[in-house]
Amino acid sequence: MAIRRRKFESIGNTGFSTNSAQTEGGRLTNKDGSINLRKTGRPFWERISMYHTILAMHPLKFLLIVFLFYTTLNVFFATIYIIIGVENLKGIIPNDDILTNFQQAFFFSSQTLTTVGYGHISPSGLWANIVASLESFIGILAFALVTGILYGRFSRPKAYIQFSHNMIIAPFKGITALMVRMATYKNNHLTDVEAAVNIAMHVEENGARIRKFFPLELELKRINSMALSWTLVHPINEDSPLYGMTEQELLDADLEVLYFINAFDDHFSNVVKQRTSYTGKELVFGAKFLPMFHRSEDNSTTILDLSKINAYEKAELPEMVISSVNA
Amino acid sequence: MAIRRRKFESIGNTGFSTNSAQTEGGRLTNKDGSINLRKTGRPFWERISMYHTILAMHPLKFLLIVFLFYTTLNVFFATIYIIIGVENLKGIIPNDDILTNFQQAFFFSSQTLTTVGYGHISPSGLWANIVASLESFIGILAFALVTGILYGRFSRPKAYIQFSHNMIIAPFKGITALMVRMATYKNNHLTDVEAAVNIAMHVEENGARIRKFFPLELELKRINSMALSWTLVHPINEDSPLYGMTEQELLDADLEVLYFINAFDDHFSNVVKQRTSYTGKELVFGAKFLPMFHRSEDNSTTILDLSKINAYEKAELPEMVISSVNA
Amino acid sequence: MAIRRRKFESIGNTGFSTNSAQTEGGRLTNKDGSINLRKTGRPFWERISMYHTILAMHPLKFLLIVFLFYTTLNVFFATIYIIIGVENLKGIIPNDDILTNFQQAFFFSSQTLTTVGYGHISPSGLWANIVASLESFIGILAFALVTGILYGRFSRPKAYIQFSHNMIIAPFKGITALMVRMATYKNNHLTDVEAAVNIAMHVEENGARIRKFFPLELELKRINSMALSWTLVHPINEDSPLYGMTEQELLDADLEVLYFINAFDDHFSNVVKQRTSYTGKELVFGAKFLPMFHRSEDNSTTILDLSKINAYEKAELPEMVISSVNA
Amino acid sequence: MAIRRRKFESIGNTGFSTNSAQTEGGRLTNKDGSINLRKTGRPFWERISMYHTILAMHPLKFLLIVFLFYTTLNVFFATIYIIIGVENLKGIIPNDDILTNFQQAFFFSSQTLTTVGYGHISPSGLWANIVASLESFIGILAFALVTGILYGRFSRPKAYIQFSHNMIIAPFKGITALMVRMATYKNNHLTDVEAAVNIAMHVEENGARIRKFFPLELELKRINSMALSWTLVHPINEDSPLYGMTEQELLDADLEVLYFINAFDDHFSNVVKQRTSYTGKELVFGAKFLPMFHRSEDNSTTILDLSKINAYEKAELPEMVISSVNA
Repeated sequence: MAIRRRKFESIGNTGFSTNSAQTEGGRLTNKDGSINLRKTGRPFWERISMYHTILAMHPLKFLLIVFLFYTTLNVFFATIYIIIGVENLKGIIPNDDILTNFQQAFFFSSQTLTTVGYGHISPSGLWANIVASLESFIGILAFALVTGILYGRFSRPKAYIQFSHNMIIAPFKGITALMVRMATYKNNHLTDVEAAVNIAMHVEENGARIRKFFPLELELKRINSMALSWTLVHPINEDSPLYGMTEQELLDADLEVLYFINAFDDHFSNVVKQRTSYTGKELVFGAKFLPMFHRSEDNSTTILDLSKINAYEKAELPEMVISSVNA
Repeated sequence: MAIRRRKFESIGNTGFSTNSAQTEGGRLTNKDGSINLRKTGRPFWERISMYHTILAMHPLKFLLIVFLFYTTLNVFFATIYIIIGVENLKGIIPNDDILTNFQQAFFFSSQTLTTVGYGHISPSGLWANIVASLESFIGILAFALVTGILYGRFSRPKAYIQFSHNMIIAPFKGITALMVRMATYKNNHLTDVEAAVNIAMHVEENGARIRKFFPLELELKRINSMALSWTLVHPINEDSPLYGMTEQELLDADLEVLYFINAFDDHFSNVVKQRTSYTGKELVFGAKFLPMFHRSEDNSTTILDLSKINAYEKAELPEMVISSVNA
Repeated sequence: MAIRRRKFESIGNTGFSTNSAQTEGGRLTNKDGSINLRKTGRPFWERISMYHTILAMHPLKFLLIVFLFYTTLNVFFATIYIIIGVENLKGIIPNDDILTNFQQAFFFSSQTLTTVGYGHISPSGLWANIVASLESFIGILAFALVTGILYGRFSRPKAYIQFSHNMIIAPFKGITALMVRMATYKNNHLTDVEAAVNIAMHVEENGARIRKFFPLELELKRINSMALSWTLVHPINEDSPLYGMTEQELLDADLEVLYFINAFDDHFSNVVKQRTSYTGKELVFGAKFLPMFHRSEDNSTTILDLSKINAYEKAELPEMVISSVNA
Repeated sequence: MAIRRRKFESIGNTGFSTNSAQTEGGRLTNKDGSINLRKTGRPFWERISMYHTILAMHPLKFLLIVFLFYTTLNVFFATIYIIIGVENLKGIIPNDDILTNFQQAFFFSSQTLTTVGYGHISPSGLWANIVASLESFIGILAFALVTGILYGRFSRPKAYIQFSHNMIIAPFKGITALMVRMATYKNNHLTDVEAAVNIAMHVEENGARIRKFFPLELELKRINSMALSWTLVHPINEDSPLYGMTEQELLDADLEVLYFINAFDDHFSNVVKQRTSYTGKELVFGAKFLPMFHRSEDNSTTILDLSKINAYEKAELPEMVISSVNA
């Protein structure tokens, strides 16, 4: 069934191509807010930002890479000490077994790289000293970079926003509205929170099925402080591109709704941003969110129950505005 | 006594629910600007941001935790050295008393973790060397994280604003105004300072007592530079939701006034924000702030006396605008 | 001679009191942009932000303090080692001369604090080991803080703007204008540069001499990129509070002009701000700035001569607009 | 051939002088966005910001300088140890050959500076101990600064935007438009991307050839998210300063078009900016960009081919709007 597109002007400022339905694949934005995109045409190393790659990496993977890097450096320097001659590492008992020698050189190397320098093994002679001097120098710089990154990862500003799993079409002031609920799920507090919403829908134009973007206006697009939860409400009134569409039409449109959140976090002293997207599969037609906070027993504080972020109950929708095809 | 609410539209962008009087407990915002809220519904570790927890921690508690962490790591590694066999730590005199052995292993561990590595004790054999090599590696990373946090805490942008303990209703240009005074109490200097004020009041609507929010307009909501003190003045004119209310009505409304300050600090090179709130108990009816700065004796500079931030004297209010029920 | 103040509304958003002429001393803003202010009324330690104090400190003073801190820590720990008994520091030859003992304990302490740990001296016995273990722990944390501060000082965003020593009243498009010239004097490049200007003047009101503030509109208050120099031009037209004032009136007004610059620096990836102020003594009446840049000999680039930032020549002013009392 | 300049007002907020054609040399902005400018008139050290110099330095040059600095410090301290007397370094076998002594003092110095402190060489006597204590102190601070810079370089926010090599005049909605294409070439993602464009053209005014600046309006100057590529489109309609100009006139104008990009990067949690400029030599008359993205084979994602950023094909231009002199 074709979708009756009316008067609304599509927008071009989404960063996605307006006539990209033929050329783009899959959903636009992944659930975690990342863009569903691959880049080619330049060599791998030019396409990779070390910083972005490392900050996006899983913590265990990061630690593993650092550990491998540490081991590799030690193997490298141990080899050099073996080449120079293990007899130049005072305290090592030279052995016929090259593996035993290598092992001792390896541990001397690790003591130098980390600047522990117990000293029961110590370099002697010009070359062993030069290499050991270089290795401790490199060790300091390398560990500095690694530990900078470690702290950079730890202190990286994040919004820690949890979105409801579903977006719902709910009754709202006599009409209906498209709603999504969100809350911060950690002991962080966001101020000056702003939200922007765009919808991507497939429409038929001149016989071709193309994707168009429309902004979805929010009843409230900025709050001073996100103390409790915040329900993002897009009223489906005459100014909405969703006005008059049935549930089936919505699903046929292969829609994707993009949410952009922008806020300030006191502890990071920085702006934090989070994105997410919903497709038609995540749309619930005719429901309303249940409250997710209540008063504490001693009446001294408010309790926000995060497990209820997606809690909703079925709700009758006003008939004339959006009629479910199943109704 | 019921409060006569007039034409004012309440606002929904405070981050608190507009009909939350039934579900919220206690005051909304604590005196120090934190939100009076508890979160549940997700496991503890998911609800906790290490970064926020650590940055908000008392300095001594932070140092204690770091110290316990250091001790625990040493106990852990000492145990491993004991398991491997204390005879693999050259320089230790193996003892029949396991405690003495453990003690020596513990100190060897601490010398390794901190990379002091005196060397009077040193690892020998494959496994002791592997563990020591790992320990110094872990030591560097762990201390890097701790020291990053230490500096992060030290350099965290803060506004260092002191607010007057009371908010007062003072005579102002023939009418009255709600005033609060603030100043930076450290040798910091804020520029581009902005203030926003919201009031939460309980009103009766359809027989139910609910809480509503209203913005309070300031006579001046932005200053270039907060050199001296700044008195935040909300004129209680016909555009004010407080217009025409008596002292008793104000107290009955169970009000809470929320102040949001936003500024830039040159030394932090960052935005700083501070929040506070006042309840009816902190409201003084009929008073005016006394000056808190004066010229230095040699006339070369201005002196700001922070002990006078809350200094006020009783003052007659214009009768027709707000009449105290006691008057 | 009294100053004829006309229609202009003074502003209150300068951060200085509008009726502060009686209570403030000296100039408002120092030449380097700091506020001429002293704070009292709270204990010294509460009034001091360590961060602000340390970042504003002269580099040599900072290094000296760090060095004294290092020495003091070593003296402290050396004393403890002496108390525990110097015989617990293996490698030290206990001496009847307590100074020699202390000296050796001091150097052992410094080797522990910096984690050099040569090991020719090493702790033995429970207490010496505990203290050494603690000292290396403290050493790492203390040096981490110091080095964080060192880098924080080094990388602190600064605008590096040089202002002309004088502000001048110059002929400008048939009328006159108040001009100040500025340029970045380092190899930094500012983008999105904004300027705001306020003037503080003393006027007579109801027989009392009070200070009032007025904004001075700039012909251009924002530039995309401060590539060369930028002359801040306030046209003295009918909208200017300076309109019609003679040189003598200007001097009698005991004026102070405050300049606020706000920009973005690519390398710091941060906003930078700089302030300065000019008093009547720095005002030159009837002059114009000489160009301070020229083409390079090979015509490939432009040369900005910073020594000419204040270069001006005498210039005739249009008579009717501002007439010098000397003319 | 003279250029017919019409109604357009030139702008002065470019940071370049409006009448600088006589005094400026070469192009204004280099291809990498840096300003083509040299500064004189202050001593070298006052004109150099260490921070800016170091951050802009090539990585290898930076490492080389750090290494030289390390070596120089070691030479310096080795010399001092030699002066104090090599016999005060226990563990060194004093030698008649001063070079051998120096060599050993050098390596002892490097072991102290890096705090490796093997201890097979150790200071003895007051002065050697004082110097070694100082050296380890200096070592920690110096390496802290270096490693801070190393991480500062690594984590410095950059936009990683690739611009098309050419700017093209393309057919656009019945008229023509000046287009440039850009995309991020790394695994970074920019949000809230804004673009501003200025053109510098030489015009004849009162017989003199001077340079003027005009803004070029973009059809779209802000996008929420730069997911794919973004083509910056300046429509050459009646509001454009380029309206009605022939290809030859454009070339004669010795034009330079300046592009300013401003965005936010999630991983850096910071604003990033990038600039570039195009001269007439980089202008292609009558062309259109070819698509640079396509659907992946499994239809699950979109592929952006960076090698096609400058891919264009010849295109007929509407005749009446801009007519190529060759056509």
